Amino acid sequence: MTKEENRTAGESEEDVAVVLIGHGSKLPYNRDVLEELRRRMETRGIFKAVKVAFMQLNSPSIEETLRTLAKDGMKNIVALPVFLADGAHTTEDIPEKLKVTFEGAWAEIGRDVNIVYGKPIGVDERIVDILLDRIKEAKEGE
Amino acid sequence: MTKEENRTAGESEEDVAVVLIGHGSKLPYNRDVLEELRRRMETRGIFKAVKVAFMQLNSPSIEETLRTLAKDGMKNIVALPVFLADGAHTTEDIPEKLKVTFEGAWAEIGRDVNIVYGKPIGVDERIVDILLDRIKEAKEGE
Repeated sequence: MTKEENRTAGESEEDVAVVLIGHGSKLPYNRDVLEELRRRMETRGIFKAVKVAFMQLNSPSIEETLRTLAKDGMKNIVALPVFLADGAHTTEDIPEKLKVTFEGAWAEIGRDVNIVYGKPIGVDERIVDILLDRIKEAKEGE
Repeated sequence: MTKEENRTAGESEEDVAVVLIGHGSKLPYNRDVLEELRRRMETRGIFKAVKVAFMQLNSPSIEETLRTLAKDGMKNIVALPVFLADGAHTTEDIPEKLKVTFEGAWAEIGRDVNIVYGKPIGVDERIVDILLDRIKEAKEGE
């Protein structure tokens, strides 16, 4: 959805911040993919802020990113697991980390902040299209 | 790429088998997503066979699927990691399992089989589009 389509639909996303939550890895690839997806989403110009956060191993953590957004005055946050499918990470680990944020100092800075937790990527024809491209590239690169 | 576009491009994929390699999970979601992606790719009618295989926890394993395809007479196999980003699983664990296949009994059944290993999903504008849909759904489901 482009900014224009968004406006056409009568919605305003200009007060919404998005957190793209990655798995985290000792290798740089997961972080690189998340950072680039973040940059591209920011380029679409739909949301007031687009940040990354990592479940483990990389920084910023989920808690760090949520605190940053709350301190910046963001009141509506969508936290999205950038995972292919649901699993223990998306159904247990990440929700647990989202809860922790409401404890301690967050009681002050996060009082009026509404956090919505989204679903992972899942099955989509666009994923099939991408996989077909990767197959083509693999055969060409032989 | 549709079958027609594929033909237009002068390529024949009719002797190619694809293996979609999933992470595997104790929960059913990763398996469900892989099975449905497999079904949708099969529906496109491009390849002679489309199979799933799991790196861990679920069956069939990578070795089982490769053996099945080799026994079925497939000579050209593209093994694709259905992962968002590269990491230790895609750069070490899966390649290691692909190698094992060439040992022992495989020396017989896999003699003339060409296996190409592809890249993960990675950064793509279509992923940004899907994430925007998931954000929209999350906000609507509040």
